[in-house]
Amino acid sequence: MNVSTLVTSDPIKVAQQLAEKLALTAAERDKQGGNPKFERDLIRQSGLLNLSIPKQFGGQGADWHIIFKTIQTIAQVDSSLAHVYGFHHLLIATVQLFSQAEQYGKWFEQTAKDNLFWGNTLNPLDKRTTATKNSDHEYIFHGYKSFCSGSIDSDILLCSGYNEAGKLLIGVIPTSREGVQFLGDWNNMGQRQTDSGTSHFESVKIHEDELLLNPGPLSTPYSSLRPLIAQLIFVHLFLGVAEGAFETAKETVQTQKAWSKSLVEQAVNDPFTQKHFAEFYVQLESVRLLANKAIDILQSAWNKGDKLSAEQRGEVSIAIATAKIAATNTSLYITQNIFQVMGARATTAKLNLDRFWRNVRTQTLHDPVDYKYQEIGEWVLTGKVPDPSFYS
Amino acid sequence: MNVSTLVTSDPIKVAQQLAEKLALTAAERDKQGGNPKFERDLIRQSGLLNLSIPKQFGGQGADWHIIFKTIQTIAQVDSSLAHVYGFHHLLIATVQLFSQAEQYGKWFEQTAKDNLFWGNTLNPLDKRTTATKNSDHEYIFHGYKSFCSGSIDSDILLCSGYNEAGKLLIGVIPTSREGVQFLGDWNNMGQRQTDSGTSHFESVKIHEDELLLNPGPLSTPYSSLRPLIAQLIFVHLFLGVAEGAFETAKETVQTQKAWSKSLVEQAVNDPFTQKHFAEFYVQLESVRLLANKAIDILQSAWNKGDKLSAEQRGEVSIAIATAKIAATNTSLYITQNIFQVMGARATTAKLNLDRFWRNVRTQTLHDPVDYKYQEIGEWVLTGKVPDPSFYS
Amino acid sequence: MNVSTLVTSDPIKVAQQLAEKLALTAAERDKQGGNPKFERDLIRQSGLLNLSIPKQFGGQGADWHIIFKTIQTIAQVDSSLAHVYGFHHLLIATVQLFSQAEQYGKWFEQTAKDNLFWGNTLNPLDKRTTATKNSDHEYIFHGYKSFCSGSIDSDILLCSGYNEAGKLLIGVIPTSREGVQFLGDWNNMGQRQTDSGTSHFESVKIHEDELLLNPGPLSTPYSSLRPLIAQLIFVHLFLGVAEGAFETAKETVQTQKAWSKSLVEQAVNDPFTQKHFAEFYVQLESVRLLANKAIDILQSAWNKGDKLSAEQRGEVSIAIATAKIAATNTSLYITQNIFQVMGARATTAKLNLDRFWRNVRTQTLHDPVDYKYQEIGEWVLTGKVPDPSFYS
Amino acid sequence: MNVSTLVTSDPIKVAQQLAEKLALTAAERDKQGGNPKFERDLIRQSGLLNLSIPKQFGGQGADWHIIFKTIQTIAQVDSSLAHVYGFHHLLIATVQLFSQAEQYGKWFEQTAKDNLFWGNTLNPLDKRTTATKNSDHEYIFHGYKSFCSGSIDSDILLCSGYNEAGKLLIGVIPTSREGVQFLGDWNNMGQRQTDSGTSHFESVKIHEDELLLNPGPLSTPYSSLRPLIAQLIFVHLFLGVAEGAFETAKETVQTQKAWSKSLVEQAVNDPFTQKHFAEFYVQLESVRLLANKAIDILQSAWNKGDKLSAEQRGEVSIAIATAKIAATNTSLYITQNIFQVMGARATTAKLNLDRFWRNVRTQTLHDPVDYKYQEIGEWVLTGKVPDPSFYS
Repeated sequence: MNVSTLVTSDPIKVAQQLAEKLALTAAERDKQGGNPKFERDLIRQSGLLNLSIPKQFGGQGADWHIIFKTIQTIAQVDSSLAHVYGFHHLLIATVQLFSQAEQYGKWFEQTAKDNLFWGNTLNPLDKRTTATKNSDHEYIFHGYKSFCSGSIDSDILLCSGYNEAGKLLIGVIPTSREGVQFLGDWNNMGQRQTDSGTSHFESVKIHEDELLLNPGPLSTPYSSLRPLIAQLIFVHLFLGVAEGAFETAKETVQTQKAWSKSLVEQAVNDPFTQKHFAEFYVQLESVRLLANKAIDILQSAWNKGDKLSAEQRGEVSIAIATAKIAATNTSLYITQNIFQVMGARATTAKLNLDRFWRNVRTQTLHDPVDYKYQEIGEWVLTGKVPDPSFYS
Repeated sequence: MNVSTLVTSDPIKVAQQLAEKLALTAAERDKQGGNPKFERDLIRQSGLLNLSIPKQFGGQGADWHIIFKTIQTIAQVDSSLAHVYGFHHLLIATVQLFSQAEQYGKWFEQTAKDNLFWGNTLNPLDKRTTATKNSDHEYIFHGYKSFCSGSIDSDILLCSGYNEAGKLLIGVIPTSREGVQFLGDWNNMGQRQTDSGTSHFESVKIHEDELLLNPGPLSTPYSSLRPLIAQLIFVHLFLGVAEGAFETAKETVQTQKAWSKSLVEQAVNDPFTQKHFAEFYVQLESVRLLANKAIDILQSAWNKGDKLSAEQRGEVSIAIATAKIAATNTSLYITQNIFQVMGARATTAKLNLDRFWRNVRTQTLHDPVDYKYQEIGEWVLTGKVPDPSFYS
Repeated sequence: MNVSTLVTSDPIKVAQQLAEKLALTAAERDKQGGNPKFERDLIRQSGLLNLSIPKQFGGQGADWHIIFKTIQTIAQVDSSLAHVYGFHHLLIATVQLFSQAEQYGKWFEQTAKDNLFWGNTLNPLDKRTTATKNSDHEYIFHGYKSFCSGSIDSDILLCSGYNEAGKLLIGVIPTSREGVQFLGDWNNMGQRQTDSGTSHFESVKIHEDELLLNPGPLSTPYSSLRPLIAQLIFVHLFLGVAEGAFETAKETVQTQKAWSKSLVEQAVNDPFTQKHFAEFYVQLESVRLLANKAIDILQSAWNKGDKLSAEQRGEVSIAIATAKIAATNTSLYITQNIFQVMGARATTAKLNLDRFWRNVRTQTLHDPVDYKYQEIGEWVLTGKVPDPSFYS
Repeated sequence: MNVSTLVTSDPIKVAQQLAEKLALTAAERDKQGGNPKFERDLIRQSGLLNLSIPKQFGGQGADWHIIFKTIQTIAQVDSSLAHVYGFHHLLIATVQLFSQAEQYGKWFEQTAKDNLFWGNTLNPLDKRTTATKNSDHEYIFHGYKSFCSGSIDSDILLCSGYNEAGKLLIGVIPTSREGVQFLGDWNNMGQRQTDSGTSHFESVKIHEDELLLNPGPLSTPYSSLRPLIAQLIFVHLFLGVAEGAFETAKETVQTQKAWSKSLVEQAVNDPFTQKHFAEFYVQLESVRLLANKAIDILQSAWNKGDKLSAEQRGEVSIAIATAKIAATNTSLYITQNIFQVMGARATTAKLNLDRFWRNVRTQTLHDPVDYKYQEIGEWVLTGKVPDPSFYS
């Protein structure tokens, strides 16, 4: 495959072609779990990894609408790969938000040139990895990190450790850096090919100019967009899975007879079945529009850069939380209720259709949706926008 | 008030100013029912009645976004007046869809010049009014019509009768035409000031050039946009009422203590209260976006004119049905559950806060929402768009 | 009518006969509001007022199942009269729980003999009425009380005031006692004939032996059954209203044509309509069983008398809270959604069918259902039963 | 283990002890799927297989309350084994309903004596197995049958075939009968250890006196109780699974910290968490009571025997359909939403907590719940009880 051709193509079409390939084995790979090396390489070859890299560094400089649309498209068939693909772009955005172009320029150029895949070992809640200053310009990262999605088979890693003062330091290193180890212990009921297991840093040396210190994590309204981008990736994962489940159910029902007691012969004409699909559709449409509006507002905030105010950042937060609540409820509703319309034969393990539910049920728990409601309710009633954190 | 000043103003602001005035007495007038002559005159004076009249006939030529937004704004405080105001614009659109500019031009010019208020005596389901040909160019309309919203105190009437062949004839006449009578028998649990009672046509003479015959009702995809505009008016009534109820609940809760067993002192900080408001907000946002999308698609279809295909008209139909389902559910949910957050004291008749629920509960029954689900489900599963009718 | 015949009859049948009479004017009286003197006298004449009076005092000594069933039966047609009728029995129970037979015997005998109607001016949350000791054996009650359901046209009153030490004193006096005044200011969106307005005590003299001091209010687990009985009365109001709405909708639909787009001709055969009724029925059945179980547990606790432990009282509390949550949700659901199956013509003010919703929407706000959830959730997770209060 | 001791014990306690043993490996075995030979033998040894055998044949002659309670108890920890255990009793009931004591007496005696496990190869919808008369008194069953729950490792089989006239013949044979084969092809997303795969009858000889001909299947109201018993087994499976999920969630949350943004420290005190558990509890209580009422009505019908009228059978049908709708909705709701309260760490494959959802999602599809709604709705509106079939 000629990558250079692809990267000049419409990225949405490229994502669709990629999704078609992933779809061939998605059900089977979901059962296997483990690292989908072959499929990760398909992503590399697609040219989509440089989608979010600004043009001056050799990337496509796509806007957020296009980036999220590619994530959603892949999630329709494979939410594990959509996840690690989405996190790749999250990490690239993270570097832009937490550091300066002088620092990240070379990483981006290399990423664009070699289709590097970024991996995540950032988890700020897991404080087991320490960052100890070794010399004037070097730190030693040492310890474990959990929930490291997309770490295995990555080319570049975003990693984090806490220094003695309790400050979170975030670094960017080649995954091949000496001492970086992955336990390969991810075995979960959903999102089974995200490699979201444990990393171990065995006295890993990180040079000061590999640390994101200016402005550093969540230090400004603008840099605090980072967790919101993560949340909006989740929204598009949920939406994509719900759309994939919807399509599967639709195709299944289109060939079925109605239940013996129905007033009609074909399932597509059964009033109960029609109403279920309409309920699915109305919810999907709502989520699509809420997600779209959230992207609009994020893009506008992203464009403001350092001029972004706390209040403006708060508006992004509310729009994304709104979309997340709807996407959470809708994706659970649809992935559960497609079975109602498809019937008992859809439960055979061969089809592995429970993966839709397992994947969103897992990923929707990243942080409790009750507290997204809480944030919005507080804002409605008092005008207070959510305080920035790695979850809000 | 200087009307000429107003009509050059931002119509959304004009609608807001009008809404402020209507709000002063809306609760009280809802109880009284009957014809709100004073408030109908406020609407006349606002200049908004010519909003949808094309500029060449002296109107503002506003697009559908602006027209629906003014309806929604008025519905936030008074859904009866929003209804008759919305139907005024529906009737103006009806004439554009069912006849030609040569015919309706003079009516529009007069409407724009004198702020005429159009009234509805069209109800095609009520076949009691007959249309008998009198001479070559004159028909006699005779009989009753039910559900004639906005008929009393109107200046121009859209009326209908069935000829001997069972064909529906629609005419436009001055309300003062001899023989036109209104029974004033509208007394309902909701939408109490819409005057949606019975009309009687006592041998009313209607000249042939007052009949909308070219192309006539629902005769083309384009002319079949008419019932969809009616449905989208309902969507904006439901949305406006829900927004009005939401605002009322918010303001009420902002001054309340939390329940004695709460973990907090102020109601705005109570987790249950916050979650309720977030549920309201997420639903409102969804409906706002679905309604907005439906307007986009309607406007695009409207702009196509006679070139509109049946399939394109079907897309408008689906978008509006989708918005209507969501608006129906959301408006019922919010108008019922605002009481949950406001508590027992909000039930005093003085506040008349049950009017929000009574109004949407009434208006959402115009045609059964179950069959909107049915239409969407059928379209999802078979690709068939709804057949045009006065309800689809 | 010969009362002495009636009181030996099956009280359920008597309640049904009474309900049939109340039903004739219920819709009309709901609109009027005010004091339903004629219907209150029908209740007096029915003989049901002595249902809960123990046999040794001349009453029927009915168990709680029968008492609640009569309340539910009346609520099916008239929830205002069911309310004041239920509160009559609540007040008789209150006296049994807060005082001793030596004290209340004479009141009960008189009640049984003369079919006295008890009224409520107890509201412990309204602390405006003071109780000042006048002499060794007399108190002066002075001030206002709100939410005095069933006070107007009552024969005996339960009233309350706070003494200087902030202690709640509860007395039983003839309604005709000098200084007792009712403002007649109840005008509400629901429960419009409960006379739940304001009372004024103008230096009312209450003798010490009219005060319920032994054991007094909520002083023991047994006496703390009082608020639970109130809550279970609400459950039966909600259930009765929901059943009444269900019956009305059923009868309406049985004569209707299906919507023009239905696969069938008669509404009773329409799949969507059938499913709505099944949803109503399943919910009603659940509430009936939960209410029934709650009565079982209450009756058992009632029979234990002073031996009732706090833990056992807690079990009653949980069972009743469970029934209340279900009855709240179900009654709101059904009274809102009956319109969905009946259609637009059911909204005419003549039928006044919105009264079902207005009545339960009002009464379900007595105390916030969110905190019933809270109590049950806490008990599930920690084993702690709710602390007795006038709301738990 | 001394079986004779056990069989004289309280069967509920025996079921609880059995459940404790099954619980040790249930999560692991669910993943493996396949035939749980060891656990099936635990059931045999428990003595519970003769619970439903009438005493005159050496069984315990338990009533339906006890039988269903043991199914529910096992389902709390292992719904696959609860299923095959429940179906064992269904098959014993089937023989009682479709044949006479003279015929089944010997089978029951042997079952009671040797703790025989009955297996199901009945599926009347799969018409691939033919029954050809061979001689005067012998039939040859030949062909495939799908969905044969509990067939592998059974001792006695209920099997069925269609004769040339299209009549369903049902036989009872030793599983070891020559020609009986099981393909072992059950691999499903839920109910993974029910062995509900395909059987093959390779010219299996069945003697006429092994056929259930008097009165035969669904031939009378009484014999038509059979599918209702099957449905009520499903209700208890759903209820048991929901209770098991509830208990797991409760225990998990009892040791957790609340989310960082909560007003409290411990998860058990978090308002959102408390409300979720209350919602679970109220639903569970409803289902328990609906199931209990359905058993009462079934038991009463069962006791009537051949005197059971079609109308009385219809009442059983409605009560069970009502319980099934509630149990379906509740079990799906709880097994989905326990994750909401437990959080992300509950999704590790090690715990296999998605099995609750997978099991009820699978089993609730036995026949579409929409048509249970339809049956109830039709009965409410027209009084018509469902026609007996293998699904109603």
